[in-house]
Amino acid sequence: MIKLADRALFIGRFQPFHHGHLAVVESLLAKHQEVIIAIGSAECCSADDNPFSAGERVEIIRASLLPEQLMRVIIIPVRDINNNSLWVSHLKSYVPEFSVVYTNNKLVSMLFLKAGIKVDGISYVDRGLNEGKVIRKLMSMGDDKWKKHVPCGAHKFILSINGIERMKAISERE
Amino acid sequence: MIKLADRALFIGRFQPFHHGHLAVVESLLAKHQEVIIAIGSAECCSADDNPFSAGERVEIIRASLLPEQLMRVIIIPVRDINNNSLWVSHLKSYVPEFSVVYTNNKLVSMLFLKAGIKVDGISYVDRGLNEGKVIRKLMSMGDDKWKKHVPCGAHKFILSINGIERMKAISERE
Amino acid sequence: MIKLADRALFIGRFQPFHHGHLAVVESLLAKHQEVIIAIGSAECCSADDNPFSAGERVEIIRASLLPEQLMRVIIIPVRDINNNSLWVSHLKSYVPEFSVVYTNNKLVSMLFLKAGIKVDGISYVDRGLNEGKVIRKLMSMGDDKWKKHVPCGAHKFILSINGIERMKAISERE
Amino acid sequence: MIKLADRALFIGRFQPFHHGHLAVVESLLAKHQEVIIAIGSAECCSADDNPFSAGERVEIIRASLLPEQLMRVIIIPVRDINNNSLWVSHLKSYVPEFSVVYTNNKLVSMLFLKAGIKVDGISYVDRGLNEGKVIRKLMSMGDDKWKKHVPCGAHKFILSINGIERMKAISERE
Amino acid sequence: MIKLADRALFIGRFQPFHHGHLAVVESLLAKHQEVIIAIGSAECCSADDNPFSAGERVEIIRASLLPEQLMRVIIIPVRDINNNSLWVSHLKSYVPEFSVVYTNNKLVSMLFLKAGIKVDGISYVDRGLNEGKVIRKLMSMGDDKWKKHVPCGAHKFILSINGIERMKAISERE
Amino acid sequence: MIKLADRALFIGRFQPFHHGHLAVVESLLAKHQEVIIAIGSAECCSADDNPFSAGERVEIIRASLLPEQLMRVIIIPVRDINNNSLWVSHLKSYVPEFSVVYTNNKLVSMLFLKAGIKVDGISYVDRGLNEGKVIRKLMSMGDDKWKKHVPCGAHKFILSINGIERMKAISERE
Repeated sequence: MIKLADRALFIGRFQPFHHGHLAVVESLLAKHQEVIIAIGSAECCSADDNPFSAGERVEIIRASLLPEQLMRVIIIPVRDINNNSLWVSHLKSYVPEFSVVYTNNKLVSMLFLKAGIKVDGISYVDRGLNEGKVIRKLMSMGDDKWKKHVPCGAHKFILSINGIERMKAISERE
Repeated sequence: MIKLADRALFIGRFQPFHHGHLAVVESLLAKHQEVIIAIGSAECCSADDNPFSAGERVEIIRASLLPEQLMRVIIIPVRDINNNSLWVSHLKSYVPEFSVVYTNNKLVSMLFLKAGIKVDGISYVDRGLNEGKVIRKLMSMGDDKWKKHVPCGAHKFILSINGIERMKAISERE
Repeated sequence: MIKLADRALFIGRFQPFHHGHLAVVESLLAKHQEVIIAIGSAECCSADDNPFSAGERVEIIRASLLPEQLMRVIIIPVRDINNNSLWVSHLKSYVPEFSVVYTNNKLVSMLFLKAGIKVDGISYVDRGLNEGKVIRKLMSMGDDKWKKHVPCGAHKFILSINGIERMKAISERE
Repeated sequence: MIKLADRALFIGRFQPFHHGHLAVVESLLAKHQEVIIAIGSAECCSADDNPFSAGERVEIIRASLLPEQLMRVIIIPVRDINNNSLWVSHLKSYVPEFSVVYTNNKLVSMLFLKAGIKVDGISYVDRGLNEGKVIRKLMSMGDDKWKKHVPCGAHKFILSINGIERMKAISERE
Repeated sequence: MIKLADRALFIGRFQPFHHGHLAVVESLLAKHQEVIIAIGSAECCSADDNPFSAGERVEIIRASLLPEQLMRVIIIPVRDINNNSLWVSHLKSYVPEFSVVYTNNKLVSMLFLKAGIKVDGISYVDRGLNEGKVIRKLMSMGDDKWKKHVPCGAHKFILSINGIERMKAISERE
Repeated sequence: MIKLADRALFIGRFQPFHHGHLAVVESLLAKHQEVIIAIGSAECCSADDNPFSAGERVEIIRASLLPEQLMRVIIIPVRDINNNSLWVSHLKSYVPEFSVVYTNNKLVSMLFLKAGIKVDGISYVDRGLNEGKVIRKLMSMGDDKWKKHVPCGAHKFILSINGIERMKAISERE
């Protein structure tokens, strides 16, 4: 077997990618050669908690990173499969080889550890795990404060696709 | 609506990515700002005509491109859905926005044209459409000539994952 | 391309088809050559909010319409696919061509408009959007008042298949 | 239980609906109150042997029948499920109640008989079971003789959607 | 047709198999030649209400029965299909022939009766239907009282796979 | 972790279970405490190469084994998932823990070895791998010689469900 690539795996739904996610990516790039960003729930979109398509989330993340960061980041959409027994194998088949997974979720940790994969925790400075939910709430209420939660490129892209109108339409239905 | 990004979409299974594919990517990079490489049949692997997982194919393609090419290439695995009515919508939900699709396949052309998307043809210099099949055949027979069909990075990566042994095991079964 | 057929598309779950739905169909028949009734959630049945099978709903609707209305109505069951990106394409592959969709749902409007399809609103005279829910509640409580909410043919058919007993059994479980 | 509706079930893919199918529908209408036409393989389309979508096949069949025939015909698209154990139940959930199935297929007969449903045979006068295949072959070769195999309304509709160009594109691919 | 085997069908999720389930199996063995234990929701696991995999549940049940009981018990995992129309057919295709189903669930009764299958009720002595939920709650709180709710073999097996740690990790996430 | 159970896993479709399979089970029982028989392709049935349902195959295998053999055999139906990346995880979630897999298939070996599971070969005395195919062929031709290829209990059970008539009906269709 060859030497395992020094890649960190960072899994999330990124609805949308925000400053908290960006800080994690930056800290991982400081420690690892490359970072794989796995975009979960890739198949769904236009639901209350999943407003942006996988393709849109790829664009938002790319728009949020600097070229020199982007060079070392691998963005891969991965659909959900609702079966924890298969989830690690499913994810592994979609992404390049990695040496460590970063997550604060105990169950995700347990599943990766059971599969013999190294797991490490994430420290979100000044930001909670519910950041995404807060941002979507602000968006659907038409409150401009959502803009300061996301990187500049993300902000511009979301406006360009009329993301706020979409969030309002989605939230009205549900 | 904002101005459509100047991106070309190049769809294939890339089993494996070979010099013919590389030449297409290079010619598309000469004409467009960015190139999206959609890796089809992402979900399957270890079948006779689908030996490498989506994650492995991402690695093979990345290993085949120069850093300055990689900067402008977006690689996205997309699973098959076996339903032509939904295929264009499915693909569009996984990839960033694009302005033109490159394909020589008449049916694919028809489906994209029907959806109002621009389509252009590919010219494979000195290489046939069956290149992938030929390479897989050479691999499964253990014939080293497969190496000169693929870029150097691809060649090294495939050896590093014992790809030839896998091809032999797969072909023996079928 | 030939001239687009003058057909209105009316989408619902019709659990069950009631006087409010009938009034919509009548008003659409007054304005359009033909009306397509797409029966959503076709695949499910015997759940609390989905008690009648697609085939039963086809029968209920047919039993509610006059022969001269039925001549100009096309009833098509369509299963859900839980993926908004694909939903319009999926629906379109199941029904004949149509020129306009009638809906009051903002998200549905948005999806059809995005696909370049004309959308118009529905005015429910004296009836709310929750009519179906109210009727199912009455049925599951064994309250005969459900009968005056549905057309006579629907009422008879539902009794003939022991629909009330089924509603009671379903609601007891949940 | 109420008296079982006097409906005949006629199952096929109808790719496309041709004179042989029409003759069957006419003979069933002579014997039964209503005829259910279940359009199988509803989900697929644009494959070599499945060129028309379910919605298009609904239109082709409607265009092939006279108003007085249409009044007594119920057309229902049904997707395949590739599991014979479930197939009869699946089909039954999509269509109104019926009293007899018409088929020449031994396995289909066996499945319905096992489920306690009456089965009868079809006599195709002067036409083989491969009629559909022959017509698709003529279409994909651009041979105008396909027109005399299908009812006039079907013929006109298929031309209106550029069906022949589609057939050629599909057959070239495969 | 041969004489129907004298087998009772007992359906549950068995998360986990407890003294209440065991008492039912014992009473069914007293009345019937063989008992089929169908383990529902076989496909899911590691969710809050579905912590043990199908394979683990097979082991738990086997560990809870005496050899002479096991001889006459047939344990079969069956995945859910979320479609009541197909559920009885689906289940029947997975298990050996049976003569009667034991259940207290009205909807399940209705579905089996509709399919012409005999149904009988279960009497849980001193135990409620929510036994499983109670046990899982105790487990996830780390309360040792869960042990007295399950047979000795089940208790030992669950400890051997670190089941309590898993329950805690799962419940923390949700 | 507890000591791994001394169980052998034997995977097959068992269409039908024949003397060759029985000899394997006997030899595995001589070497291991328990044998898990995983019945593959559990979901399909009534196809040319998959004529018996999972439940029927469970009965055929049980009818072929002696009580003292049955005591140490665990029979589990497992549906296919057509994704080699997930296959080992899928299978593992359905069956009790095992220490070794017996197979002659190179790809299956490779998949299990990659997952860190011990693999051993099978020696079929006097019987080829195509035994099942030969038996189905004899059945569909109505040739009584199929009977001497299967254990006595299997033979009786297949006749009791009119298996030969089914095989003939299936083969005629295809």
